[in-house]
Amino acid sequence: MIPLHIERVGLALPAKTESAEELSHKIGRSADWIRRRAGVETRHISDVSMPELGAKAGLDAVGDGPPPDLLINASGVAHQVLPDSSVFIQEAIGLSGVPSFSIHATCLSFLAALQCASGLLNQGFYQRILVVSSDLGTRGRNFEEAESAALLGDGAAAAVLTLPPQGMTSGMHAFKMQTYPEGREFTAVRGGGTRLHPHNPDTKPVDNLFHMKGPAIFKMALRETPPIIDTVLKQAQLKKQDLELVIPHQASGFGVEVYRRYGFSDKQVVDLVAKQGNCVAASIPMALAHAVESKRLNRGDDFMLVGTGAGLSIAACILRF
Amino acid sequence: MIPLHIERVGLALPAKTESAEELSHKIGRSADWIRRRAGVETRHISDVSMPELGAKAGLDAVGDGPPPDLLINASGVAHQVLPDSSVFIQEAIGLSGVPSFSIHATCLSFLAALQCASGLLNQGFYQRILVVSSDLGTRGRNFEEAESAALLGDGAAAAVLTLPPQGMTSGMHAFKMQTYPEGREFTAVRGGGTRLHPHNPDTKPVDNLFHMKGPAIFKMALRETPPIIDTVLKQAQLKKQDLELVIPHQASGFGVEVYRRYGFSDKQVVDLVAKQGNCVAASIPMALAHAVESKRLNRGDDFMLVGTGAGLSIAACILRF
Repeated sequence: MIPLHIERVGLALPAKTESAEELSHKIGRSADWIRRRAGVETRHISDVSMPELGAKAGLDAVGDGPPPDLLINASGVAHQVLPDSSVFIQEAIGLSGVPSFSIHATCLSFLAALQCASGLLNQGFYQRILVVSSDLGTRGRNFEEAESAALLGDGAAAAVLTLPPQGMTSGMHAFKMQTYPEGREFTAVRGGGTRLHPHNPDTKPVDNLFHMKGPAIFKMALRETPPIIDTVLKQAQLKKQDLELVIPHQASGFGVEVYRRYGFSDKQVVDLVAKQGNCVAASIPMALAHAVESKRLNRGDDFMLVGTGAGLSIAACILRF
Repeated sequence: MIPLHIERVGLALPAKTESAEELSHKIGRSADWIRRRAGVETRHISDVSMPELGAKAGLDAVGDGPPPDLLINASGVAHQVLPDSSVFIQEAIGLSGVPSFSIHATCLSFLAALQCASGLLNQGFYQRILVVSSDLGTRGRNFEEAESAALLGDGAAAAVLTLPPQGMTSGMHAFKMQTYPEGREFTAVRGGGTRLHPHNPDTKPVDNLFHMKGPAIFKMALRETPPIIDTVLKQAQLKKQDLELVIPHQASGFGVEVYRRYGFSDKQVVDLVAKQGNCVAASIPMALAHAVESKRLNRGDDFMLVGTGAGLSIAACILRF
């Protein structure tokens, strides 16, 4: 097991919410259709910027502890093209001089950041890494594409990572990620970069909005996720029932429901889709923070973070809290 | 020293070039002004996309060796907002199933990726990491801002990273990075994300183009860079003259020239600004690949990668090749 300690978590949920009823008028579907198809009853809507929301979660995680010596932004969508968003989160937190950069694996950014952080801490580069995931998914909603517009919500979460303190056995049992570029168009915001630059005459307004082919993602995820879960369980020498919690990416009602089909119990699976929707890269750390704060996850528990991300990527990670 | 071996490097220079003379008509300044102010005689202009150019460099680095088991995109500007660009590079290389994600620290992305990769290799997560930096800076030029438009060029480079083979002492002696959000507006492309979304009525066309306040960056860089260089030299227990090469970010003619002022000789400093311009995050690995291919850098040599990036960030890293 690779030593890694999630010292504290932080959460930032915007006060403003939007109900299925309120959204129904924007996308031309009934509230019941939204609940049934997306599984989302309410989502939070941020009035503040992505770095400000991220800083709120970051400050919640840092609390009255010492400041981090590295800040990693692990969000799905950037504040702007340049500089990288970590700088804006650092500014909003009120830090200066601490190195910061971003790790981007769309909805799996927090998992990739955890893996990199475990390496950086164990090599002695840093002692205290703050990872922040903040996403304003509602700003990229395409109301003409009801299926995806019904899913997205805003939120942020953060974690302070260290090596385990004396006498604690926290760490990473196993990690596995796979990326299949065959799925690169399944979930996309095609604009904003050098492919379809805002000034490119070929760029259509819809290219700057979130697009998702739900059934295609599902087909690939259903095929590729179970072997990855089996691999990490085998690496960790654990069985499904040994995991206290399974914290999946909150992709959709069905996207979380499917973990029961993979052999986990209702008690094991953290499901916040109805209350928060899909918050892109912030989904996994938000669910982790919720599990810690509600005491569903306690010191010494073995648990799994798992999910799919645009790409298509699939990753699973087993940790001891 | 942390074990890290740069097994092979790869380079992709677009065939098409643009001379100072040709650019002079676009920005309303003389060719001589461009040479004097930016230090750039010619830059390469890519006809292919950022992932295609990156894949060319990646394939050059992989050569006839085994495929990587992780791909890290370490570029400054994305192909599109979602999914993350590593997926498109993976597709263009012809891989599938290999995990991939991006590390973004603007012009210092390759340095942050090297640091993360050293942790991932030493923890045994991966055996063979391909890092690719590919940037099409010319697509974001603002011809109304002659100072920055005169600098940018396109290019890509890549490196295959492993642990050192038996009997070799390659590795990372020292690494130091600092980020100062006070400089967050000095170098920027303000659009493309959730701050100034393409559909936001407040977004002006100029927000989607590269903007740079050269003198402000310089003032901060001149103050903050020498102490970082001193820190990594001390950590590495080396003196300036012990370094075979200093490979700086190719920010501008003056941005490279200044390393002589910091106490390094012409022979030590790799300077390709006149021929390639500032290729954003690809600049440092392009200069590294050039140094390896021209045999200025040889096995056993100690050398430094160093530079500033939008943010403002400053980083230096001493390695043994």
